[in-house]
Amino acid sequence: MAEAGLDAVLVTQNADLFYFTGTIQSGTLYVPVTGTPLYLVRKDAGRAREESPLRDIVPLAAMRDIPALLGAHGHPAPRRLGFELDVLPVAFYERYQKVFRDAEGVDASSLVRRVRMLKSDWEIAQMRAAARQADAIYQRAREIIREGMTDIELAAELERAARLAGHPGFIRMRSFNGEMLYAHVCSGPDSAVPAYLDTPLGGVGPHPSFGQGAGWRRIQPHEPIILDNAGWAEGYLVDQTRVFAIGELPPRLMRAYDDMLRIQELMREIATVGMNCAELYERCLSRAQELGYADHFMGPRGAQVSFIGHGLGVEIDEFPPIARGATDFVLAVSMAFAFEPKVVFPGQGAIGIENTFHLGPQGLEQLTFSDERLVTVG
Amino acid sequence: MAEAGLDAVLVTQNADLFYFTGTIQSGTLYVPVTGTPLYLVRKDAGRAREESPLRDIVPLAAMRDIPALLGAHGHPAPRRLGFELDVLPVAFYERYQKVFRDAEGVDASSLVRRVRMLKSDWEIAQMRAAARQADAIYQRAREIIREGMTDIELAAELERAARLAGHPGFIRMRSFNGEMLYAHVCSGPDSAVPAYLDTPLGGVGPHPSFGQGAGWRRIQPHEPIILDNAGWAEGYLVDQTRVFAIGELPPRLMRAYDDMLRIQELMREIATVGMNCAELYERCLSRAQELGYADHFMGPRGAQVSFIGHGLGVEIDEFPPIARGATDFVLAVSMAFAFEPKVVFPGQGAIGIENTFHLGPQGLEQLTFSDERLVTVG
Repeated sequence: MAEAGLDAVLVTQNADLFYFTGTIQSGTLYVPVTGTPLYLVRKDAGRAREESPLRDIVPLAAMRDIPALLGAHGHPAPRRLGFELDVLPVAFYERYQKVFRDAEGVDASSLVRRVRMLKSDWEIAQMRAAARQADAIYQRAREIIREGMTDIELAAELERAARLAGHPGFIRMRSFNGEMLYAHVCSGPDSAVPAYLDTPLGGVGPHPSFGQGAGWRRIQPHEPIILDNAGWAEGYLVDQTRVFAIGELPPRLMRAYDDMLRIQELMREIATVGMNCAELYERCLSRAQELGYADHFMGPRGAQVSFIGHGLGVEIDEFPPIARGATDFVLAVSMAFAFEPKVVFPGQGAIGIENTFHLGPQGLEQLTFSDERLVTVG
Repeated sequence: MAEAGLDAVLVTQNADLFYFTGTIQSGTLYVPVTGTPLYLVRKDAGRAREESPLRDIVPLAAMRDIPALLGAHGHPAPRRLGFELDVLPVAFYERYQKVFRDAEGVDASSLVRRVRMLKSDWEIAQMRAAARQADAIYQRAREIIREGMTDIELAAELERAARLAGHPGFIRMRSFNGEMLYAHVCSGPDSAVPAYLDTPLGGVGPHPSFGQGAGWRRIQPHEPIILDNAGWAEGYLVDQTRVFAIGELPPRLMRAYDDMLRIQELMREIATVGMNCAELYERCLSRAQELGYADHFMGPRGAQVSFIGHGLGVEIDEFPPIARGATDFVLAVSMAFAFEPKVVFPGQGAIGIENTFHLGPQGLEQLTFSDERLVTVG
């Protein structure tokens, strides 16, 4: 904050509030460049006091009261004030600008996201627990996948299992218009259908009003069944994808799966401290192209996404992006990211793998651990 | 749009895109004051063409291409351009402002929301189907509620049932930081705990990172078990709340339930075409105060919300608000809204009712229809 010339940052978005306060209440957290943060809470201040370790928590009746409350807690009026402009709607920002008439508003979203990008040992421990939940859901899928069941029937059973295992049933996605369920469960040709999300796989979904994930298709033999699911523990996520099939898959898909494992292997070799995230992306993309997947890698031709991995934690789409042009991001100790090489064959299906990794002091550690072999069921 | 002096509105948010295009794809819909809308689609244009009845759908490679694509389709450069500034993040708005350098940006969110506020016969038919789904979930709850089961166990079963009945598993809430599941299922004292949402009831939830709805409490006899659930059909929602109990409830809660039915009855009498929504709110609030609920109505003291009802359809929080100060909204034919008089007794529980209504040419019609008597189970 000092480097960015900021006097304070006003944190208002749910995921950021959870990260900085340990709870999510309606209100705003004032984080000054020096001194103690002040949590101004509309609803509910009592819960904020119970759930947050922060010392300074005060009820907030109206936004116009903010300057007086800051003054009463010894905070001088800020001249340069940071906001999460990547997520804050314009109408809210304009209201804050009226409250802080004499302050210059600055985009602090990158700053906030870069703080959150580096995970503590405690956060990584939660993500390890989330990996155990992701594995339990994968194990449950092994048990229940049957020919003729719909993708939605499979999803409903896995979502129920996740919920009983503690999953809150909600995935936070930072992107504007980001909407996501616990898991994407898609079989055969449906797994190759692109959707509006910035994800390599989309899925048909139950209806055009929610055209992603599981649809009404019945699972058939000899086609890939994709389970891309977000395990959860104590507010933290991991991301894992595994593929199932009833009987054998066509040779092209089998070969593609092995090739995606090869790209994961390449990433494991080169993802070391100091590696630029754009270079990591380009080298893995080049390998996919060499292997013959230029028109299939990370989405069907015309709907390919420009990343192979993404940071994650409280949100499913955190820093760093392992993406085209992500030259501002260099791998460093304490980062965590998902890596998901996948290929899509329209009309046939999608295949690939995803795991969540952590860059520890001893190098890359894999947090998700479910068996990486294709699962043949039935 | 002509009245507001707008040359066009740029629609980008998922719910609005679904309303105006019949699909949700990543991109933007350009709606000119005269002429044919143009849907500019990043991902996926093929799906947009399959799912949308709109004629003019073109792929969009980059935002900077928008002016040229508009020109190629005969649209003059807009001078006053509307945006959904209630939901559009500042960073996106700034990018659009660079694309439309010569246009003045105007907040069109109220305009968009007022168009969506009036429901067609087709939309009401979907909401009737959604009411049937809400009733099916209520019936399922009657069957499965048992002493000793946790609220989360009950929620998991009901969510599974809703999913198998077609519910996509995602509820759209327009408010910034709005997050919601299919249903809030809360029992006893947990039902009286306020949360960050702008809702009369909150719930403890599974964890401070998602502190709303069902938690780990076990259902006991003689306490209210609240089921507030959003039925879904073809992208449309209804909202319904019913209360269950194992054995009898304490007299104070029984009386409060009857009193909430009385407030619903008052609303049914006075909610006619031409009634101001602020007045409707004030008259129902006054009745609640007369009945002795000043400190309990629509939330526990200190966390009371300032509304008793809300429009709904594609989103759970549409216009009109039946709320303090909602003087700009007057009941008119074709509106649909949920009405939810509820009271909260900290340490004991919450109780109340919610139904979804439609103002038809013949007057107020109730869309949700589950039995309104308190359900005694076990």
